[in-house]
Order: sequence, then structure tokens, then C-alpha cells
Amino acid sequence: MKIAIAQLNYHIGNFEGNLNKMLEAIEKAKNQDADLIVFGELSTCGYPPRDFLEFDDFIAKSEACVNRLAEESRNIGIIVGSPTKNPVIEGKDLYNSAIFLYGGEIKYTQHKALLPTYDIFDEYRYFEPASEFNVVHFKGKKIALTVCEDIWNVGNENPLYVTCPLDEMQHHSPDFVINLSASPFNYRHAETRIHVLKANVERYGLPMFYVNHSGAQTEVIFDGGSLVISPDGNIHDELPYFKEEVRVYELDEVMKGGINRVQPKEKIALIHDAIVTGIRDYFGKLGFKKAILGLSGGIDSAVTAALAAAALGPENVLAVLMPSQFSSDHSVGDAEQLAKNYGMPYKTIPIKGIYDSFMGSLSEHFEGRPFNVTEENIQARSRGVILMALSNKFGNILLNTSNKSEMAVGYGTLYGDMCGGLSVIGDVYKTDVFALAEYINKDQELIPRNTITKPPSAELRPNQKDSDSLPDYDTLDEILFEYIENTRGPKEIIEKGFDKKLVARILKLVNINEFKRYQTAPVLRVSSKAFGMGRRMPIVGKYLS
Amino acid sequence: MKIAIAQLNYHIGNFEGNLNKMLEAIEKAKNQDADLIVFGELSTCGYPPRDFLEFDDFIAKSEACVNRLAEESRNIGIIVGSPTKNPVIEGKDLYNSAIFLYGGEIKYTQHKALLPTYDIFDEYRYFEPASEFNVVHFKGKKIALTVCEDIWNVGNENPLYVTCPLDEMQHHSPDFVINLSASPFNYRHAETRIHVLKANVERYGLPMFYVNHSGAQTEVIFDGGSLVISPDGNIHDELPYFKEEVRVYELDEVMKGGINRVQPKEKIALIHDAIVTGIRDYFGKLGFKKAILGLSGGIDSAVTAALAAAALGPENVLAVLMPSQFSSDHSVGDAEQLAKNYGMPYKTIPIKGIYDSFMGSLSEHFEGRPFNVTEENIQARSRGVILMALSNKFGNILLNTSNKSEMAVGYGTLYGDMCGGLSVIGDVYKTDVFALAEYINKDQELIPRNTITKPPSAELRPNQKDSDSLPDYDTLDEILFEYIENTRGPKEIIEKGFDKKLVARILKLVNINEFKRYQTAPVLRVSSKAFGMGRRMPIVGKYLS
Repeated sequence: MKIAIAQLNYHIGNFEGNLNKMLEAIEKAKNQDADLIVFGELSTCGYPPRDFLEFDDFIAKSEACVNRLAEESRNIGIIVGSPTKNPVIEGKDLYNSAIFLYGGEIKYTQHKALLPTYDIFDEYRYFEPASEFNVVHFKGKKIALTVCEDIWNVGNENPLYVTCPLDEMQHHSPDFVINLSASPFNYRHAETRIHVLKANVERYGLPMFYVNHSGAQTEVIFDGGSLVISPDGNIHDELPYFKEEVRVYELDEVMKGGINRVQPKEKIALIHDAIVTGIRDYFGKLGFKKAILGLSGGIDSAVTAALAAAALGPENVLAVLMPSQFSSDHSVGDAEQLAKNYGMPYKTIPIKGIYDSFMGSLSEHFEGRPFNVTEENIQARSRGVILMALSNKFGNILLNTSNKSEMAVGYGTLYGDMCGGLSVIGDVYKTDVFALAEYINKDQELIPRNTITKPPSAELRPNQKDSDSLPDYDTLDEILFEYIENTRGPKEIIEKGFDKKLVARILKLVNINEFKRYQTAPVLRVSSKAFGMGRRMPIVGKYLS
Repeated sequence: MKIAIAQLNYHIGNFEGNLNKMLEAIEKAKNQDADLIVFGELSTCGYPPRDFLEFDDFIAKSEACVNRLAEESRNIGIIVGSPTKNPVIEGKDLYNSAIFLYGGEIKYTQHKALLPTYDIFDEYRYFEPASEFNVVHFKGKKIALTVCEDIWNVGNENPLYVTCPLDEMQHHSPDFVINLSASPFNYRHAETRIHVLKANVERYGLPMFYVNHSGAQTEVIFDGGSLVISPDGNIHDELPYFKEEVRVYELDEVMKGGINRVQPKEKIALIHDAIVTGIRDYFGKLGFKKAILGLSGGIDSAVTAALAAAALGPENVLAVLMPSQFSSDHSVGDAEQLAKNYGMPYKTIPIKGIYDSFMGSLSEHFEGRPFNVTEENIQARSRGVILMALSNKFGNILLNTSNKSEMAVGYGTLYGDMCGGLSVIGDVYKTDVFALAEYINKDQELIPRNTITKPPSAELRPNQKDSDSLPDYDTLDEILFEYIENTRGPKEIIEKGFDKKLVARILKLVNINEFKRYQTAPVLRVSSKAFGMGRRMPIVGKYLS
């Protein structure tokens, strides 16, 4: 039996586009004499469809897509993911289903049982868990159909669910397991995924065909990396990361085992490719081509510009230099050099006149109070207005250049440098931004060396340095990682050897700046815990603030 | 038996504050010889604690609070809501529990079974549902302990769950039902709540003591309205809305029935009081006293200012008039009149100089393109910078003045008039903003009549009117209500008699402006479907856009 797996880049609610992609993949599979083709989870409507699932019309469109695919299934088995209606009045109105099509009709539907509801996932918001389990009979084989999380309770030290769907399906003696996934990227996810799949193979002794999405949906990035695992636990194949791909496998070959193909999983390279994918799909799926960003000469905007250039082409990235009276000469020079290295268009618009105009109108109302963060923010916000004006006039999407460390502690100006339609490196700690810069420069100096080596500064007052108000980034990032990614409380972090007062101060900064992050652009997610939909915190809260 | 119900205004993560409130209430109850006192759901930590629940330290602090309350339970039964740990490794790590304390110790813990995971609720993100049910034995009575949603599967045409906890508890023949709730306000919620409670009384024939929170946590507002219902279905008592209250009831009196006390539930009055509560608690719980807002002479900023004055006192609301070359004389006059009517401090800061300064720097880059929304946005953003500068200098929180209709269709400037730490009327359709204005003026003309009667305009270009680009608000609001509150798709809305093209245009506007709402302040929630945490939509999506 020949099994095709189709790792595709879907688009939420683009039923026609998704259908056409699947039809093309079916053609490819047929041309290679595949008996069966498998698509990803909720492939008709894209993932995550979020509250569009509450619209009957949206579900009807998903169903129409399944019915259209069924017509193509006369000579090939098709397994597609789609929301389906729960006919029982009690419980949620929908299921998240894997649907087996053959002979021109729907032959079997297996609902998802384990509904991820944590981090960025909200599936129990919409779906009823499966309570019945069976296998698909196809050309003399029995197939266990699972959807994403269904296999993730195995190989997990702290399982989130009290049941495992494959335990139930085992009673029907399946020959192999298919898993339809929409499992988002983080820089450790490919390793974790292989660990979980191998744990399933070990537990059930069955080969697995695991089909993931590729491409990004706003902040959520799918890396692909679909897997075929032999019963001996060897990785028969791993599909490329961040790319669409259709490949066909002979089941007998997979059964044999002995082949182990793996791709490199280097953290910074993966983050780079994920962000490039994230930018490209954000623009492509929204129908935009051109980006704009402020280039300060610092490392954050330099790395953001480089990533945007890789995603959209440098000719589509408009850099704007907006020096103030506090900008150093080298800042302007470094920014210009970067734009020239890439061949990006750039404009220079000094903000002193605008700043003076604001101060002229405001100083009488400031009642003689001294220069403070207010005046710093006016500079950052003047730049925000300029960037948004150019964005509005020319239709470029403004990219936000804040990194995760400064977003965490609120070291940024709301409606100023925190402007932008998409946060490019908002899930990358400052220490990793440096590593990304080196990675980008691995073959030639694209980001000027001085941008990387000079001490970070917001340049909003004379001789300002980040280190005036923040601890060094190595320490800061370690504490933030413990608090944000590892959800460790103050006592546990202090026990790791950090200064008690420093930990209290940083955790407080994180919490009292929740109001700023609430109003930030979606953040391309590359870690296991990004700001945004995956980390939901009260604004009005007293704990650690 | 005397039962006290304590309807309190908790504060998320303010363990000491919450504990002290509960200790005070226990004193009051003891002074009235109560046998038992009941608090709300998750009263130790406040509701919704969101991802703070993922911190062991946060749970430990909740447990410490329960243990401290247990010490007070030597002579009075105490029922408190708190997160508790799930000792079983499989499943979620926590339960949402009602804990019965007596004789100085924890006597019984009943976990919540039905975990709301829809709209603003994310409980399955954190909690394992209860699988065991029992009753509390106390002074010869058997008490069925339920938590909020546990009773909401009854009286519901489309029940969300396949089980009802009280069905299980019925086997133990309870004498009465206690429900610990944290059930947020919307302007129909008090009616719905009574409907659901009566359906439970009818189904089980038992009296109910229903204890809700009062007060607001960021966008979520709790109206209180706790209820005591007799077995005959009469409302023995309904506690006040939006206020803390401790009341003691003699069980025998409740059993008798025949008394029916209800409060008026007038939509606009409830919305008014809810928003005033929301503003007051947002400021109070964050430790702020003073607000700032831009006053345009239009109805949205006038109503926002009036609500802020009611919440914080007019002396704490700084109004800023920022006329441009497009502002009409009456706008400035109307705005001044409002400030004078309330005795609010106000400043006038014209923006023409600032606008000219931006245009001076930008016009060469605009390449001769005509005046369009870009220049309109520069005006709105200049005002945003001024307001934020005053906010930064003096520590006033900026109030956002956008209404729900304009937020829905994106009729507002991101980082301009969409600035602000809290959206006051972002869940109030324009037609209801007018009704609110009339309600505010019911005793005297506080909002100038001209502000209410003149045609709405953003005044960002000569002779601009909202009706130039939007349908009349009556029609717009009806279509939006069908789409947003009723989640009806285009076909169903058109079937109600609306123009096909208009419906398509409005739904498209709603969807393509998701990126703007993503970056908006939290919106005080007064309807059944507010923008923000209760409505989760993809930004990158093709459906209806």
C-alpha cells in the first residue's frame, strides 16, 4: 500500500484556496500511484480558526469542502481534517474530526478525543471530545486515525488527560497509525515531537504517519517536519521544515525499518527560518507586499530588517531613520550602512522639529516639571506617528522591532516603538537577538559589526544605556526565562542563585507592564511561551506586582 | 440554621486583601449568630486568575489563605472557593473547589465539574473536572455544594455538558444547594441567572443559596445580585447590584417561601452602573486616582467623561480639548460646557502647529499624493501623543472613548483616538451611547443637548460626517448585533431583510479590522459578547474578508 502525506500551508477561512491545494496534492499522489493521501488537522478551514467556528456558515463551508474532496476519492483514499457537527444536543456543538473518504463518499469519521486547552490552544472552547473509537478498514489494512493531541498523552511525564485514544483503538488491532496534526513550532518542538512519536511507537508497536501543517497563521508558525516512523522506532522520513511537500511511502518499506533520516535542529537557525516564514505568510495571506520599519542603528531594528528582507525581498522593506538630538552619529551611520548592505530603500526624517513642536505646546502644561520618561516617550511616539503616516500613505505594514526582554520588563513606549502590525522578534530574548545577528552575518557582514558590539541604548536622553536601568541581559534573560517559560515563582528563582531584590524587581516589572503587552501587535511565536494568546495574564492583579 | 452569604469584591492575587475582607465578613456573620458563611468562587485568589494559576507559588498562597480561614471556623462553618491541587498525575494539575471548613479544619472539598470554556472563560485550561460528588453534613442538614457553572446545564436549551453534578448529588438527598459563583455581568445576565436558578429549583425541589462576586477585574465586571430562592421558586432575596453585602438568612424562613423580592433590571441603568464600577475598580485596584481623556464635543467622549466623573469624582478627570483646523466652534464650546457642567479641570491644546510640523517633515516624502486618511490619522495621533504625554507627566490613566460600533468597523485611528489604558464604552453600540447620554441627563442637562443632537463627526476633514462612510447607526448596530452577539453569518443576516451588499461590506469591515482591535485597551464588558478576551478571531483569515 502506498501512502501519501501532504504537508501543506493552509489559510484560515480560505476554503477555496485550501481546497485547491488539496486537489493539487491529490493529483500528485495519484500520479505516484498512491492508495491513500493524508492531510493535516482542520485542513478544510485552516488552524486555528478560533471563534469563526461559532458560525454555522463557516462549518457549512468546511462541510462543502469535504464533500467536494469526497468526489475525488473514487480511486484514492483521502483522509482530511475538518470540524463536524455534534448531532447530540448535550455537549459542545462540534467535533474536531479526521474524515476518511473513499469511493466518492464519507466512509468513516473519527473525532479527536484529547482537546488541547493550554498555551495558545483553546479546543475545548469549541469541541466535544470523542467518546467512541474504531479503526478504518482499507484494502485489507486497519488504520487507527488520530488527531494531533490524541497521541500526546504518551511519553509525557505529567499527562494532561486521563485517557489515551490509542489504548481504545488497540482493541481493534490496527496495522498502522495516522495522525493529522496542526502542531505549532517552537525551537525545541521538533525534538519533542520525535520523542512523543517514538514513545507511541514503543507503546503500541505500530508504524506512524504523522502529517503536520507548514506555514504561519498570524503569530502561530507551523514548521512541518511531518514524520514517518517504522515499528522499530527509526525515523523512516522527516519532511522539510517550513515548506510544503507531498511524499509517497510504500508501507512495506516503512514496516522494514532500519532507515533513520533526521534533519539538523539548531536553535538559532530554526528561529531564523520560523520568523522568515512568519513574516512572509503574514504579508502574503493578508495580501500585502511591503514592510516599513524604523532603523535606529541598534541591533533589534537591524535584525528585524534583515529578517524582513529575507522574507519579502530587501526592495520591499522601507527603512526610516529618525534621528533626534540624542542620536549618536554612529547610529545614523550604522543604520545607513545596513540599508546599503541590503540594498533596501531608506529615508531619513529627523524628529527634532516635531519634538520641539510638541514641547512648545506642552511645556506650559508641564508646570516646570523636569525632563523625564514623558519627554523620552514623546520622541518614541513622534517616530511612531511618522512610521504610521508612511505606512498609511503607501500601504506598507509597520514591523515592530521590540525584543522579548524589553517587552517583558516594559522597556519600550506604548504607541511609540511598540507600534507595528506584527512583532517580529518579540519572542526572542535580547541574548538570542545577538545570536541571530551573528547567524545572519555568518557568510558576510550584512549587519554592521558596530551595531552588534556597541552597548545597547534607546538614545532617548544624553548618554543613555540600557544597562542604566536594567541588569545585564545575560542575567535578565535567565530570570525572565525561569519566570515566563518555566513558570517558576520568586522563591524557586532565588533558590537558583539569583539576587532576591533583583528577582522581585524584575517579576514586578513583568507584571505591572501587562497593560502594555495587552496592546502590542501579535508576536511571532518561536518559544514554548510567547507573549500574546499563549500567555494570558490579568492586568488588574496584585500578585508579585 | 442561619446562613450568611458574603457578596464581596475580591482582587486577583491580593491574598491579604481578600483574606481580610473574608475575615471581616466572618465577624459580621458571627455577630448575627450565623451557623454558616458562604463566599464566592475562587475567593482566595480572585477571579479570573488566568495563567497565574500555573505558578505553584500562587496556589500555595491560595492554600495558605484557606488554612488561615480554617482557624476561624471553630464556631462557624465557612465555605470558601479556592484552587486546589489534583493529587493524580493524569489530568490537569488543579481543581476549582468549594471547601467546607468547620471546627478549625477542612472537612470536605467538592470540586467543580462543569468548567466553562467559552466567551471570556478558560477554565478547562487549568482545571480537571470533578468526577466524585457528595454532600456536606452540617448540624443535621445535608448540603449540596456546587460551583458556578455546575448548575448552568439546567434550564439551557443547548446544554454544553453531558452531565449535571446535582443529578449525582441527588442520590445523597441534600436539604439545600449552595452555589459559589463568579458570574460576570452583562445587561441581560440578572434575568438569565434567575431563569437558571429557578430551573434548578424546579428540577430538584431544593432551596438555593447563590453567592456571586461584586466589583470588576480589568474588563470583567461582577454585578453581585446574589440570590436566595425558596423551594416554591420564589426569590426570597436578591442582593444589590455592584455592591458588597453580607446578609444572614434563617433556613426555615427560606423553606417557607412566599416572599418574592426583585430589583429593577433596566438595560441602560445597569450598563451605566456596570461601567462606573468597572472604571472605579480598574483605577482602585491598580492604585490610580486620576483619569485623563480627550474631549471633542462629541457624544462618545462626553459620555465617557460623565461615566469617569461618576466613578472617580469630576475633580479627578482631566479633560483635554485639542481642536484642529477642522474642528467646528460648537465642538469646542460643547466640550467646554460639559467640563464646566461637571466642574472638571480642562486644558485646551490646539494641534495645528504639531500637525503642520509633521506635514513639514513628511510632505516631501508623500510624493505629491493627495490628502487622505493618512492626514486624518496624523491629527488623531498627534492628539494621542499629547494625551499620553500628560498621562505620563501627571500619572493619569488615559481613557479610551471609542464606542462598539466604530470599534467593530475600524472607524478609528490606531495609536490615535484608539489610545488609552481602558476602553470605557467599547462594548456599547452607538445607539446605546445616545441612550446612556439621555440617562445621564435624566435629572439635569449635564451633557450639552447639542452634543447629543448634532450629527456624529470625527472632524478630521472639512464637513466630515460619520454618515459619509457608514450607514446610519440604527442599521449598522442591528447588523453588528446579529453578527457579533448572535454569531449569525451573512446569509442569515440578509434573510432578516438587510441589504446584501451592505451586509457583505460591514462584515468585511469587521473582519479586516481585527488587527486594530487586537491592539486596543481592555474593553469593559457589558454585553454577552464584547471585543477582547471573549471574542477571539484570527487576524490572518480569509473568511468574509
